[in-house]
Amino acid sequence: MDAGFRPELITAAQTKIVMLILDGLGGLPLEPGGQTELESACKPNLDALAAQSVLGLTVPAGPGITVGSGPGHLAIFGYDPFEYEIGRGALEALGVDFELGPEDVAARGNFCSMDENGIVTDRRAGRIPTETAHELARILRSIQMDGVEFFIEPVKEHRFAFVMRGAGLGDALSETDPLKTGMAPLPVRALDGESERSAQYANRFIEQAHCLLAEERPANMIMLRGFAKLPSIPTYPKLYGLRAAAVAINGMYRGVARLAGMEVLPVGGDTFCDQLSTLETCWNEFDFFYVHVKKTDTCGEAGDFPGKVRAIEEVDALIPRLMALDPDVLLIGGDHSSPAVLRSHSWHPVPVLLYARHVRPDGIAEFGERACTRGSLGTLPAKHMIHFALANAGRILKYGA
Amino acid sequence: MDAGFRPELITAAQTKIVMLILDGLGGLPLEPGGQTELESACKPNLDALAAQSVLGLTVPAGPGITVGSGPGHLAIFGYDPFEYEIGRGALEALGVDFELGPEDVAARGNFCSMDENGIVTDRRAGRIPTETAHELARILRSIQMDGVEFFIEPVKEHRFAFVMRGAGLGDALSETDPLKTGMAPLPVRALDGESERSAQYANRFIEQAHCLLAEERPANMIMLRGFAKLPSIPTYPKLYGLRAAAVAINGMYRGVARLAGMEVLPVGGDTFCDQLSTLETCWNEFDFFYVHVKKTDTCGEAGDFPGKVRAIEEVDALIPRLMALDPDVLLIGGDHSSPAVLRSHSWHPVPVLLYARHVRPDGIAEFGERACTRGSLGTLPAKHMIHFALANAGRILKYGA
Repeated sequence: MDAGFRPELITAAQTKIVMLILDGLGGLPLEPGGQTELESACKPNLDALAAQSVLGLTVPAGPGITVGSGPGHLAIFGYDPFEYEIGRGALEALGVDFELGPEDVAARGNFCSMDENGIVTDRRAGRIPTETAHELARILRSIQMDGVEFFIEPVKEHRFAFVMRGAGLGDALSETDPLKTGMAPLPVRALDGESERSAQYANRFIEQAHCLLAEERPANMIMLRGFAKLPSIPTYPKLYGLRAAAVAINGMYRGVARLAGMEVLPVGGDTFCDQLSTLETCWNEFDFFYVHVKKTDTCGEAGDFPGKVRAIEEVDALIPRLMALDPDVLLIGGDHSSPAVLRSHSWHPVPVLLYARHVRPDGIAEFGERACTRGSLGTLPAKHMIHFALANAGRILKYGA
Repeated sequence: MDAGFRPELITAAQTKIVMLILDGLGGLPLEPGGQTELESACKPNLDALAAQSVLGLTVPAGPGITVGSGPGHLAIFGYDPFEYEIGRGALEALGVDFELGPEDVAARGNFCSMDENGIVTDRRAGRIPTETAHELARILRSIQMDGVEFFIEPVKEHRFAFVMRGAGLGDALSETDPLKTGMAPLPVRALDGESERSAQYANRFIEQAHCLLAEERPANMIMLRGFAKLPSIPTYPKLYGLRAAAVAINGMYRGVARLAGMEVLPVGGDTFCDQLSTLETCWNEFDFFYVHVKKTDTCGEAGDFPGKVRAIEEVDALIPRLMALDPDVLLIGGDHSSPAVLRSHSWHPVPVLLYARHVRPDGIAEFGERACTRGSLGTLPAKHMIHFALANAGRILKYGA
């Protein structure tokens, strides 16, 4: 954890914290002199809240570093994203809401096409329909071995999550994807002693998969990469004494929240409105709520500027319903920027707003990138925000006399 | 010390630095949209000075961390408050202006009430008058042992500072206060080998105190806690080559200044006016002056918003007299925030102003929390301020060619 934080200073309180994350919130103008997505959105409620809040810009990992959603979320949750790394395989499994255990070794799987000489002819098997992948996964689930349990969870098209569960399995494993066609898949090699058994299991699994899929077309083989176990991170209940809950719809965010010790709550639909219903229902049972909105990022990555603006406006319209719960602390921010003009995540710092009774309001009646530049939080590491939230919730004791 | 500081770059100069600390300076509005104590004070001199200065906000220890006066002062003096910790016992002794030596083991002492079965019936002995504590302390001063010297200095009501002076005494000692009534006081236990002798001395002292106070009422016993030696910190003369002086009235601040190698100057009264007289008298003898004003914090902790405003205005009225000394560098700031609305120290960053001939003035003609948010120093660790003061005083050489 951060050097400026002392776990022994944490104390209990009867206060509620809400962390509302608009995924990929930060944006850019479409043209020079223009406004960002957030700046051009009509958002009277967020702007009014900003006037009573402190504003700033968060840097997820470091200057100039663009983060994925995994490290972006770890950072805004208060963890150093370089200290705790979530491997790609583990993220893939979390993404399909697989309840990955601390001992599980996960990998990203691909269905691919191979010719009779064992040469890969299409690394993605023509992007087979997701339904086909489901059928193939069913076939692979017949593979059984003593001492290990396998899980195959289709993701989308040719992609699936692969998990090995067993005692004492290491995750230091090389990948089987040769990364270009015209070559044979590589065997899994153990990169340390602890991973020898994992390598044997994985290779035997691939061998049996090869036999079982021999007659299938176009996907007649699998490749595995990004082998990873979950990092062991101190949880919210242990670190902060918080009964923490996640109100997220997409698997990966639910998974990262679970990793941080949050209880993942059921949501009755896929809208922000449905998420607020969950929040209202469970309000008394938790101290901390992480609420995740995905659409801002989806639109940003799709280059859909007006769609991202609308996503922000949809959230804005329901802010009064959120405020009706009277949270002691409300943090609104993002895990990273996803400017529509870039059609991708980016390194730009992310607007953040912290509302609480005893903040020293900046008096800036606008929630936007440039308004946040003038905020008193300044431009700060994302991982520091949780400390401000806890302080404002009366959950940090005085240090020294 | 901070990674960004190189002691070998320090050089001598014929310049004077004044660090004026208004204790607990940072505040909060009483109601949403209102002004803080500092913002609502009538302070034409500070505002005029601000226009010629650089402004910013200091963070004493870390984001969201509320500090006590000890760590708050270490930070503004340039030390990392987590690296150098002043234990509670040591602070108690400093607080009564006891000249604590580097080998002394200090503790917070309580007079308490015990029944005939040795059970604590009142941990504070009904908060006996301070005068009674003085009489009891006189009785305890008769306790003598070979190899150690004891000091008992009344603080207020039932509280006193307890000090053991002797060679090779450790301070890793458990506390005797059971923290609730209905239990017997605990014996002092050594928590490491070096503290075995300290534990024996402390237990024998308590035993004899018990005998000597047996007939007293209501205070017939003592309890000791927070055993601590002073941390060993590099001093201003050694670190910065500064002949440094402290112009502080309250014991604890004088003690922390002494710890940093400052000479504590006599002050002929308890007003800021008296402190300025000391400054004027000793102006030629020192390079650096720390001037401490307590009233801002006292009022903040008492919830006295107008009192804190007045305390600021009193300082403002005498700024011309301070400026008449023509300091090369004047830093005005605080050790932490103490908003009257919270009646306590708080985590909010603290306004700071740095005046010198060659600052690049922000041109903001106001010294206030929100004005400082716009200042060019930004929001920065308090421990960095001393470097700006030294640089502006021509006391840091160029690094590299």
